[in-house]
Amino acid sequence: MNKYIIPDEWLIIEDNYSENNNLASESIFSLGNGYMGQRANFEEAYSGKTLQGTYVGGVYYTDKTRVGWWKNGYPEYFAKVLNAPYWNGIDITVNNEQLDIAKWKIHSFKRVLNMKSGILHREFVAENSNGDIIEVHAERFISMKRKEIAAIKYSLKILKGDCDLSILNYIDGNVRNQDSNYDEEFWNIHQSKCTERRSYMLAETKKTGFNVAISTGYDLLIDNGKFNHIFSEKISTPLFVGNKVSFSIEEGCSIEFIKYVALTNSLNITSDYEEKTFSHLDNAMKAGYSQLKKEHIAEWKEIWKEADIKIEGDVEAQQGIRFNIFQLKQTYTGEDSRLNIGPKGFTGEKYGGSTYWDTEAYCLPFYMVTSSHQIARNLLVYRYNHLDRAIENAEKLGFKNGAALYPMVTMNGEECHNEWEITFEEIHRNGAIAYGIYKYIKYTGDAKYLNEYGLEVLIGISRFWAQRVNKNEFKDNYMILGVTGPNEYENNVNNNWYTNKIASWCMKYTLEAIEKVAKSDSQRLNEIYIKTKFDQDKETSKWKDIISKIYLPEDKEMGIFLQQDGYLDKKQTLAEHLDPKVRPINQHWSWDRILRSCFIKQADVLQGIYFFEDEYDNATIERNFDFYEARTVHESSLSACIHSILASKIKNTDKAYDLYMRTSRLDLDDYNKEVHEGLHITSMAGTWLSVIEGFGGLRIKNDMLSFNPVIPAQWRGFSFNVNFRGNILEVNIGHIDIIINNKQGDRINILINDKEFPVEKDAKLHTSYLAHSLDRENA
Amino acid sequence: MNKYIIPDEWLIIEDNYSENNNLASESIFSLGNGYMGQRANFEEAYSGKTLQGTYVGGVYYTDKTRVGWWKNGYPEYFAKVLNAPYWNGIDITVNNEQLDIAKWKIHSFKRVLNMKSGILHREFVAENSNGDIIEVHAERFISMKRKEIAAIKYSLKILKGDCDLSILNYIDGNVRNQDSNYDEEFWNIHQSKCTERRSYMLAETKKTGFNVAISTGYDLLIDNGKFNHIFSEKISTPLFVGNKVSFSIEEGCSIEFIKYVALTNSLNITSDYEEKTFSHLDNAMKAGYSQLKKEHIAEWKEIWKEADIKIEGDVEAQQGIRFNIFQLKQTYTGEDSRLNIGPKGFTGEKYGGSTYWDTEAYCLPFYMVTSSHQIARNLLVYRYNHLDRAIENAEKLGFKNGAALYPMVTMNGEECHNEWEITFEEIHRNGAIAYGIYKYIKYTGDAKYLNEYGLEVLIGISRFWAQRVNKNEFKDNYMILGVTGPNEYENNVNNNWYTNKIASWCMKYTLEAIEKVAKSDSQRLNEIYIKTKFDQDKETSKWKDIISKIYLPEDKEMGIFLQQDGYLDKKQTLAEHLDPKVRPINQHWSWDRILRSCFIKQADVLQGIYFFEDEYDNATIERNFDFYEARTVHESSLSACIHSILASKIKNTDKAYDLYMRTSRLDLDDYNKEVHEGLHITSMAGTWLSVIEGFGGLRIKNDMLSFNPVIPAQWRGFSFNVNFRGNILEVNIGHIDIIINNKQGDRINILINDKEFPVEKDAKLHTSYLAHSLDRENA
Repeated sequence: MNKYIIPDEWLIIEDNYSENNNLASESIFSLGNGYMGQRANFEEAYSGKTLQGTYVGGVYYTDKTRVGWWKNGYPEYFAKVLNAPYWNGIDITVNNEQLDIAKWKIHSFKRVLNMKSGILHREFVAENSNGDIIEVHAERFISMKRKEIAAIKYSLKILKGDCDLSILNYIDGNVRNQDSNYDEEFWNIHQSKCTERRSYMLAETKKTGFNVAISTGYDLLIDNGKFNHIFSEKISTPLFVGNKVSFSIEEGCSIEFIKYVALTNSLNITSDYEEKTFSHLDNAMKAGYSQLKKEHIAEWKEIWKEADIKIEGDVEAQQGIRFNIFQLKQTYTGEDSRLNIGPKGFTGEKYGGSTYWDTEAYCLPFYMVTSSHQIARNLLVYRYNHLDRAIENAEKLGFKNGAALYPMVTMNGEECHNEWEITFEEIHRNGAIAYGIYKYIKYTGDAKYLNEYGLEVLIGISRFWAQRVNKNEFKDNYMILGVTGPNEYENNVNNNWYTNKIASWCMKYTLEAIEKVAKSDSQRLNEIYIKTKFDQDKETSKWKDIISKIYLPEDKEMGIFLQQDGYLDKKQTLAEHLDPKVRPINQHWSWDRILRSCFIKQADVLQGIYFFEDEYDNATIERNFDFYEARTVHESSLSACIHSILASKIKNTDKAYDLYMRTSRLDLDDYNKEVHEGLHITSMAGTWLSVIEGFGGLRIKNDMLSFNPVIPAQWRGFSFNVNFRGNILEVNIGHIDIIINNKQGDRINILINDKEFPVEKDAKLHTSYLAHSLDRENA
Repeated sequence: MNKYIIPDEWLIIEDNYSENNNLASESIFSLGNGYMGQRANFEEAYSGKTLQGTYVGGVYYTDKTRVGWWKNGYPEYFAKVLNAPYWNGIDITVNNEQLDIAKWKIHSFKRVLNMKSGILHREFVAENSNGDIIEVHAERFISMKRKEIAAIKYSLKILKGDCDLSILNYIDGNVRNQDSNYDEEFWNIHQSKCTERRSYMLAETKKTGFNVAISTGYDLLIDNGKFNHIFSEKISTPLFVGNKVSFSIEEGCSIEFIKYVALTNSLNITSDYEEKTFSHLDNAMKAGYSQLKKEHIAEWKEIWKEADIKIEGDVEAQQGIRFNIFQLKQTYTGEDSRLNIGPKGFTGEKYGGSTYWDTEAYCLPFYMVTSSHQIARNLLVYRYNHLDRAIENAEKLGFKNGAALYPMVTMNGEECHNEWEITFEEIHRNGAIAYGIYKYIKYTGDAKYLNEYGLEVLIGISRFWAQRVNKNEFKDNYMILGVTGPNEYENNVNNNWYTNKIASWCMKYTLEAIEKVAKSDSQRLNEIYIKTKFDQDKETSKWKDIISKIYLPEDKEMGIFLQQDGYLDKKQTLAEHLDPKVRPINQHWSWDRILRSCFIKQADVLQGIYFFEDEYDNATIERNFDFYEARTVHESSLSACIHSILASKIKNTDKAYDLYMRTSRLDLDDYNKEVHEGLHITSMAGTWLSVIEGFGGLRIKNDMLSFNPVIPAQWRGFSFNVNFRGNILEVNIGHIDIIINNKQGDRINILINDKEFPVEKDAKLHTSYLAHSLDRENA
């Protein structure tokens, strides 16, 4: 844990320069607009620890797999999120000394990310070795309105000394991925040119052939317009291009340097990069910084109108949830169905790939509830478009007849990771793809999705499971051997409860889906059967046999499900007894020790209970929660949120609150000492779930919205919006009452602690959920 | 399987040129002398498929680990056996056309390795595009007498055409390892120079700083001394150095070019490389080719006198065993206790490292029985010298108080492999180190070894096991979780029977060793206790508890030990039902499919039964053999030999013979389609065991040599020598009788089928073992 961010409801504040925190701050203060993004690197030169990171959505590189010993079935490449040419740079020289916060004497320093407006601000006073003192205010944003545009306002005042100042506005194509497997360069720079006040670079990724074109231009205002002699220089080398201006300026005077950047790429245009990129730039410069900023803020206002969660009485909790929502909205906006939600978004390179099971298991509900349902649908169609690849994927591993195994990590539908044991063996991911369809239809009521796309995907997935299970003739049951469950502190286990559970559930749900499509459109069903060469009798009866005989390990005496065969053979110790000095254990213990310990990285059995909670009574949930929570070290970002939701479910509100704080401030307070690598974007959707499904208790029951609220003692109240089947509802939860404001849409019936209430059009429902809860318990 | 080697008792013969077989032949026809070695690369240029391989014992490179995701406890580097500067080359040009078997028309081709003399011979007739035809006889050896010396006699006759001939004798420093992790170069070439008729190169390995110096010179004889005008040229570039001679020669004439090579390295000398290397070269050239060859053959004669196994009536079996013995003796001669037996010897690069558990589990008996006991002792001392590193190794994984974990693969005592799952998790290796000590003392009677070295090693090993086991409080037993057993088609299993068995055996044997040392020298015991900070009461009582409560999985109904927890949950199919098209399965099945299948790569439970056979009756051995042999695909070279020994033990002679042929001709007939990568050197000792311990039934019982022979129906008889505690015995086994000739040493008592016979000094014992066997069965 490293707690240095100042709590504030809307702002993320760092009020001191610390070289040691800089990598973490670069992650935390990242900006993005779904189309591109950047770590919060300083504009000026910086010789301290830094990870320069500039990323473009959908632009990746297929880096040759790195393994000790390649074996059949291993993926050919690890697709890397690409560090693209760096467009953020503004080098400053004061009396021939290059401004560098790591080297200059820093009198004051402050960095503020305004989440309401999406503006990153930084101010500092710095002194060079000559005693010249300058004050800088640097402000920037990546436009939410004009996706190709970013702008920086760099204001500099001379507090002491008369200065020769030079400013270099550049694009740097000499970039590498920190995590390159073989230290290769990933880019060819095809063009780098410089004209009066403008620079341009065209880069193409090796192997994958993506083009990225960047242009930059600037406006310079010196001391409110007073005349200076300006010496202007063009710098153009194959990998670096920029414009440099030099001039003299007196003590007390100031300048304002505005940098405009336009970035296009071959996902959106295929020719005339230079012309089109400059056209974006010209339009932006014509509009000017103030106008661009205004538009940008207006977009964020709209986003917050839908997506904000207000928490009263707990600034840290409030800051946490807004930070999570802010980063999610920066990462994925849902407009481009070829894109998806990378685990680090635009804030770092680790993990590569753009799409994990995180999308279906964690992110889908966030976009479903806070945006138009179309965005969630796009996320599902993304997988439908990858179905053929998933079938190929399974074929490579020896499966046949249309069995589909979705990749654990992907860019284009192919498996693209070089970590076999704790990535590729996690075949449970296939279940989450199906669960996403289920959850989407349950929430939106859009059952037609099954006819159009969903059923084909479900059939492929169920076929995989039907081949992957292993009939145990001795015990007359079905097992799944040799997997890694969600808990990545295990490897190659037999009968992971979660995997076996979701496998059989997939087959069950596919059977239901077949029934539904048969009823709604039997002709369409027939088409699907023909397309998938489905042998209804044979395949469904095999599925039914598996469903009825699936082996789900449990310990009857303790009344818990067993994470996998042999879990209880491990030495049973509790996470609270671990020496804090060895946490996180993955940074202190050897891998073999972790593997054989009982400690759990992230929700595993509990992930299954979360998904299928309707099948279990509260006592069962509680027993399993108590057992597994005590053994879970939450060293995955995907863990605390699920535990928090279940804690809310079993009314263990204190625990739910602790876990909520952990998940919502995971990155802000750097619980797992890894935020320097980037933020945990997908888990932020889990944080959101822990409020909405956790404290809010939002579920869909009988096609109705349902709330079973609990509220942490630390909060006065909390509120959020729900976009549900044409209604937009504002939900406000206090310690006793719930108020639901039907802001948009017709009359709607809502369940509060399982009691049904109508909420009229444009009206509010105000009722005591606590009373209903007591009623229910007494019933 | 690829069967193209012509059977012969003493010769390895290839009588056709085939580009497709060339990589395999380069492995099979390799030469070495323990100090250095080389694949059978053609002397002249070759543009076909080839792996140029020149290796120097003990010279390695620490190649940075390559893993998908580095985790704590992973080794830092993968030590590579280094491909050293290539000294074998003699380029021939005939009328400006470079001789290249891949390009010229080949009229005839024959390659012969004479195992009796250690001479590699090759002859061929080749025609260039101009119609010039030449006949070449190339003969070479790496001297067994003068370790630094190799010599090549390259005879060339012009069968058609008058020719301008040029001959380039060179050393090439531009070499790379094929299996470099990051395509790096491993050498710095410090010096490369050329004088009249001589060349010299000094190379140093990067990081590890080994120096290798090579000098070469030549003698040229043209057409029995007739005068020609010879143009001589020196070629010296930083990475390549050589002498070239050019002259004209008429049809029907011939030349003889003798290349001498001297190689020194910094394991043996530390300065004046050039002077010393040239001094070796000068001496060799002064002696001349014929003398060097004579000395070399004489050394081999001595080796065969001790080590030969004769098999009558089965040429393929005879060729197989001699090939195995020949390669073992080429790889390791036991003179340098810093060296060990690499899995590929000097025949390839795969697997890196020089020392695996193969040394103790397979190789030790071979050197112990066929050479002086000192060589086997050196192999044990090698491990003693690494004890501190083994303790460090264990500390890196979180063990303490002097627990020692020997590496799975090592050069200098450090773990040096980049394959975690099926290498590093194989902690069973630690048991083999202890077993080696046990087997050595049992055979040699050298119990003092415990006092001097052995006990310290045993204490370290037992301490490791005592910490590595896991007390299961529910079941009141001790388990070992998260290991890979010898069967590398499993990974991260719980309670591998072999591992649990050898772990508890180690503690038991250490307790016995303590007793022995206490009796023979209690003061020495005290010294060891002080040095190792041994807490006798506490540690030994813990060990006793573990020994008494170790969990050894078994299936009582079937009467078999279980390879690991859950083994019977796998779908049980038999290897004979596998489609031959998918074998070896590791080249056809995905890794996950192999992992979850029941198929076994190599002896695992059976390895344990082999080690501890005295603890099991024949019926138990037979049940386990029948169960596991049916499921074993023998895709490790270390498998068939152990199965063959057990098959002999249970008198399943046909099976033993099949398995013997598989192990003895594994490389000659390329069973697993991988001989192009190099030979399986360490498993060759297993082949030897399958004759001596298998068919011969050699054991030590009550400090006596004991034989329980069986003989394959295909053989008329077989014989071998045994070097046992001062005696050298020639053992001759037929279908009924055994003849034991006491060639050296005093009267000795020997057990034949458990009946004791004296064998007088310089006398022979001749008796019917078959009769004794029937007696015993009737008893």
